[in-house]
Amino acid sequence: MMTSVIGISTLLPSSRTSLQSPLLSLTDDDNNNNRLKNRRKPINIAMSLSSSSSKTLRKLEVVTPVPADIDIANSVEPFHISEIAKELNLSSNHYDLYGKYKAKVLLSVIEELESRENGYYVVVGGITPTPLGEGKSTTVVGLCQALGAYLDKKVVTCLRQPSQGPTFGIKGGAAGGGYSQVIPMDEFNLHLTGDIHAITAANNLLAAAIDTRIFHEASQSDKALLNRLCPLKKGKRSVADVMFKRLKKLGISKTNPDEFTPEEVTKFVRLDIDPETITWRRVMDVNDRFLRKITIGQGPDEKGMVRETGFDISVASEIMAVLALTTSLSDMRERLGNMVIGNSKAGNPITADDLGVGGALTVLMKDAINPTLMQTLEGTPVLVHAGPFANIAHGNSSIVADKIALKLVGPGGFVVTEAGFGADIGTEKFMNIKCRYSGLNPQCAVIVATIRALKMHGGGPEVVAGKPLDQAYTSENVALVEAGCVNLARHISNTRAYGVNVVVAVNMFSTDSEAELNAVKSAALAAGAFDAVVCTHHAHGGNGAVDLGIAVQKACENVTEPLKFLYPLDISIKEKIEAIARSYGASGVEYSEQAEKQIEMYTKQGFSSLPICMAKTQYSFSDIPSKKGAPSGFVLPIRDIRASIGAGFIYPLVGTMSTMPGLPTRPCFFDIDVDTTTGKVLGLS
Amino acid sequence: MMTSVIGISTLLPSSRTSLQSPLLSLTDDDNNNNRLKNRRKPINIAMSLSSSSSKTLRKLEVVTPVPADIDIANSVEPFHISEIAKELNLSSNHYDLYGKYKAKVLLSVIEELESRENGYYVVVGGITPTPLGEGKSTTVVGLCQALGAYLDKKVVTCLRQPSQGPTFGIKGGAAGGGYSQVIPMDEFNLHLTGDIHAITAANNLLAAAIDTRIFHEASQSDKALLNRLCPLKKGKRSVADVMFKRLKKLGISKTNPDEFTPEEVTKFVRLDIDPETITWRRVMDVNDRFLRKITIGQGPDEKGMVRETGFDISVASEIMAVLALTTSLSDMRERLGNMVIGNSKAGNPITADDLGVGGALTVLMKDAINPTLMQTLEGTPVLVHAGPFANIAHGNSSIVADKIALKLVGPGGFVVTEAGFGADIGTEKFMNIKCRYSGLNPQCAVIVATIRALKMHGGGPEVVAGKPLDQAYTSENVALVEAGCVNLARHISNTRAYGVNVVVAVNMFSTDSEAELNAVKSAALAAGAFDAVVCTHHAHGGNGAVDLGIAVQKACENVTEPLKFLYPLDISIKEKIEAIARSYGASGVEYSEQAEKQIEMYTKQGFSSLPICMAKTQYSFSDIPSKKGAPSGFVLPIRDIRASIGAGFIYPLVGTMSTMPGLPTRPCFFDIDVDTTTGKVLGLS
Repeated sequence: MMTSVIGISTLLPSSRTSLQSPLLSLTDDDNNNNRLKNRRKPINIAMSLSSSSSKTLRKLEVVTPVPADIDIANSVEPFHISEIAKELNLSSNHYDLYGKYKAKVLLSVIEELESRENGYYVVVGGITPTPLGEGKSTTVVGLCQALGAYLDKKVVTCLRQPSQGPTFGIKGGAAGGGYSQVIPMDEFNLHLTGDIHAITAANNLLAAAIDTRIFHEASQSDKALLNRLCPLKKGKRSVADVMFKRLKKLGISKTNPDEFTPEEVTKFVRLDIDPETITWRRVMDVNDRFLRKITIGQGPDEKGMVRETGFDISVASEIMAVLALTTSLSDMRERLGNMVIGNSKAGNPITADDLGVGGALTVLMKDAINPTLMQTLEGTPVLVHAGPFANIAHGNSSIVADKIALKLVGPGGFVVTEAGFGADIGTEKFMNIKCRYSGLNPQCAVIVATIRALKMHGGGPEVVAGKPLDQAYTSENVALVEAGCVNLARHISNTRAYGVNVVVAVNMFSTDSEAELNAVKSAALAAGAFDAVVCTHHAHGGNGAVDLGIAVQKACENVTEPLKFLYPLDISIKEKIEAIARSYGASGVEYSEQAEKQIEMYTKQGFSSLPICMAKTQYSFSDIPSKKGAPSGFVLPIRDIRASIGAGFIYPLVGTMSTMPGLPTRPCFFDIDVDTTTGKVLGLS
Repeated sequence: MMTSVIGISTLLPSSRTSLQSPLLSLTDDDNNNNRLKNRRKPINIAMSLSSSSSKTLRKLEVVTPVPADIDIANSVEPFHISEIAKELNLSSNHYDLYGKYKAKVLLSVIEELESRENGYYVVVGGITPTPLGEGKSTTVVGLCQALGAYLDKKVVTCLRQPSQGPTFGIKGGAAGGGYSQVIPMDEFNLHLTGDIHAITAANNLLAAAIDTRIFHEASQSDKALLNRLCPLKKGKRSVADVMFKRLKKLGISKTNPDEFTPEEVTKFVRLDIDPETITWRRVMDVNDRFLRKITIGQGPDEKGMVRETGFDISVASEIMAVLALTTSLSDMRERLGNMVIGNSKAGNPITADDLGVGGALTVLMKDAINPTLMQTLEGTPVLVHAGPFANIAHGNSSIVADKIALKLVGPGGFVVTEAGFGADIGTEKFMNIKCRYSGLNPQCAVIVATIRALKMHGGGPEVVAGKPLDQAYTSENVALVEAGCVNLARHISNTRAYGVNVVVAVNMFSTDSEAELNAVKSAALAAGAFDAVVCTHHAHGGNGAVDLGIAVQKACENVTEPLKFLYPLDISIKEKIEAIARSYGASGVEYSEQAEKQIEMYTKQGFSSLPICMAKTQYSFSDIPSKKGAPSGFVLPIRDIRASIGAGFIYPLVGTMSTMPGLPTRPCFFDIDVDTTTGKVLGLS
């Protein structure tokens, strides 16, 4: 049964707050709080289900105006997750249940299906967004609902797990929106299956290990340290397995510490960490601005060993990036052990395994490596896994989830995965970092655009979250849209260069005119897009993205080129940075003294062959957020350069990146509560 | 099939490291690390199962010497937890699976079985322990294995969830030991079902809310604050539900903020928190000594609003105590909202609900309120739930787990629950705090004793963790044991005073002689114990605690008195403290100036009717750990007094309590790793 179609412009809400990933909602400007004003009142929702060939697919009967996200989410009874798993041909030994609506799919599925051909691999990026976000997550979900519930394709959506910080701070739901959502929405936005908590625990165990090691080295002789690190057991010194890694690194081939020369004992027992070089910070999955910069060690028993440091939000931990980029349990063990926390006073990198803690970190992360299966409103399967920061990390969901999904959908099926931020950052990192490590080949890249954002790029007035939109955005202005398409065009040509077919998805608002929409289509095709499609999945669920689904299918079936990277790995750090800068439109790159020093150090330490993860604003191709459209001829400044050696990338900082959000005067938590009679979560959106 | 019984003294390991709760392993003395020396090497374990009337019960065939805990744990294939649930007549809608071996039992079971009679309720405490611990957890598990697998009783074990800090720091397994363990041991000791992570998240959200509120109040006018806290929506000010609580407390009956007088606006929008009075600290489930005392707010954007504070380990959070003492979801909502974080400058207590965050805290804790079902080595059911600190909190597992368990075992069945620390603290708090809030009636209290600890109380040399035991402890010395029984006797008479029957369980070591064991039995009976039994459950599993099981059953069946508390609630704070001090043998109590001030304040604030939770060393009845035996005539010093208003108790500090452990030079994590081929955890014990 299909819903009768009413004129689209009357169906759409006039002021839809498109959703952006909470990872990106870093501002704690109080004004943002006013975004809540735009929220629709709950209304009575009539929703009926139509049957499908699959037992778990449903088509939604939608109502207008579109109700609040939480009301839509709560109006649908999710299928037991074992039913969703069954549709993917997973049996109960392939997953662990976490309650009724979540299951962790075990990594062994990849091996079991090794001989099976992969499905089509689709990445969704966006044009340079307004601060309101242009609905990328919602489009990912809507596209999958279309492919699964309307086009009868095997499909899996791969999404990032959101941080809890923004959930209670400034709103930024990450489960999609309107009739394109992942459910249950509260479980998606809260603990999920504990992966971020595991990251927090692992990150902070490593942090504690660093300071305590410095503390104990400061007060003990070489002999005392050796006695404690390798205690005598029945007359023989015991050496933990992890210590052999350090011995090997130090070039000590003896295995009995009693045979070490005094110099070898010193080298072995003293990490001699230079506190000034420690880059490892503690983390917490809470918006707590007062932890951005702190002094630790002020207790009377810590002997005056104070140090300035700070907390990041958990999703900014390198361990999150490791989780997202790892390919197996043994690979994760290696990456976690290889994480560099700082240097010794002699300038050598000190790793988690030098501290003896790489194994324990892996134990803490061993369940987190399994992605979490959930479902969309229309009953299609979703894998939620990892949520690395999109600025200081690569902002993409996990490789293992994509790998599992590609095997599960099999040939002819579709895996749709989202890349955080605009395509200049998200899709670029998807290709050059994620696909490089995974070896996977995407066939199609979707670029999500809105008339609103294009008008902004065409010269429209500033768009500020929480403030009413200027009327330039709500009345027809084709010229403004056309002018703004330079932004879209550059994203298209940049993305085309990877060898994928590009489909532009115009996420439509009720105020968009047909002429405006047509202008975007023409510009997109002229810039080399395979197709450009208008979609209304927020208001109509999968039914509003059927054309997009068909376009994506054709794009996948007709790809002719192999994946091409923007840069090879074996050139210098600077050459790689410059290749990426050119894709932004920059005419050159300027390095600070600090950046020069870091490049020299990482090169000397042997890390120069890693891919580059630019930490740049998403609000402009350039480093200056106010430069809209497609700026060119600017010089990109590199302020500093850092590295996530375990995760496997070097990240140049273009400007200041906040890695710990704050709370506004009236955070979302004021509205959040539990109905203690029903146990239902209230006020979450 | 029963195991052939060999002479017990040849069966027992000569140097068994009894287990203590990791909550109690707070010292980071490097010497403790040497405790690892005593660990047995893994050996080949032959273990066969005998059938039982129940489908999930197994009897263990034990080997000697007793293998390492992890090897015993890994040698048994746990039953799928749904099988364990089925034996308790739970159907799949009564619980949520978390993997194959854990399930969260839903609170609704209590209501559903409301009309059913409770089973017998048994609490296990101990004598004043040595630093090695006397095997209380192990006895709890062994007793339950005996009741379930050998005596054919319905039984549920209720245990605390251990903190992850000590798991990676200084060893303190909390899953029992030897042939009396909860399995899978790694899942028990690691994330479990995420409850402690939820507590960390909730605790730190509240902490962030406090500092941010002070920050925003400092920079905004009353009007600006009101505009943000109650933004205009369609011309009307929106007031969040939680704000009505504050209005009620302030005596403001108006509901439209626009009608507030300027004074009312000020009172409403300004919590005016006095930073000096903030008692709420951040938490982390990691042993991180460098966070004991820190300075926060040093970032350039925090406008110089620096403050000294610190982190506790997560299990020391008041939210953990709330979880342990709550009785329902609505009760938890109230307690979380009522938690006091400090005072206003005018001296009024400021609560989580004043900050608007009580509902969000409840949302974060809504799954944590459901206890986790696991199993013992012999297939009896275990509920793991909550693990509040045993010094600054009450150190008992949760009320809801006990309530569910008592309904599930039903009349004639047994629920065995552990009380942390010695009986002077653990059992006292179990009775006067936990049972007072739950309304439950225990019939029997077990007191665990060892010959080793009794010899120490009789005047034996100091027992130091990690150092070899003096030969006084390994050779027969009946006189020393007899002298030490004064400690046991006082614990017995104190516990008898609650109206329960006391059974003494002597946790036997291979070096204990029959004469020594007989001396304990005589002393116990003379002091008023219902029975005294020697047990060997560490070496023999349930089979080694059958006599204890029979004694406990008789004790329960023959209880004649109702539960009596040590003090009524309606006397003054000082009178309550003094009643408890008398039970320690003190002749008086001495209050510091600070304590006097706090008593006055809490009394003025209306909190004097709460029960008292003494924060005292567990190593002596007195405040001085070296005073062994049954000291009397001493004056108990009260250094300070604090309160957990939401959890519902006032806690006087007798001496300094560390609430954040540290790591030694060689923490356990050096040995912990994952076998990346099998996924099995290595090195955990």
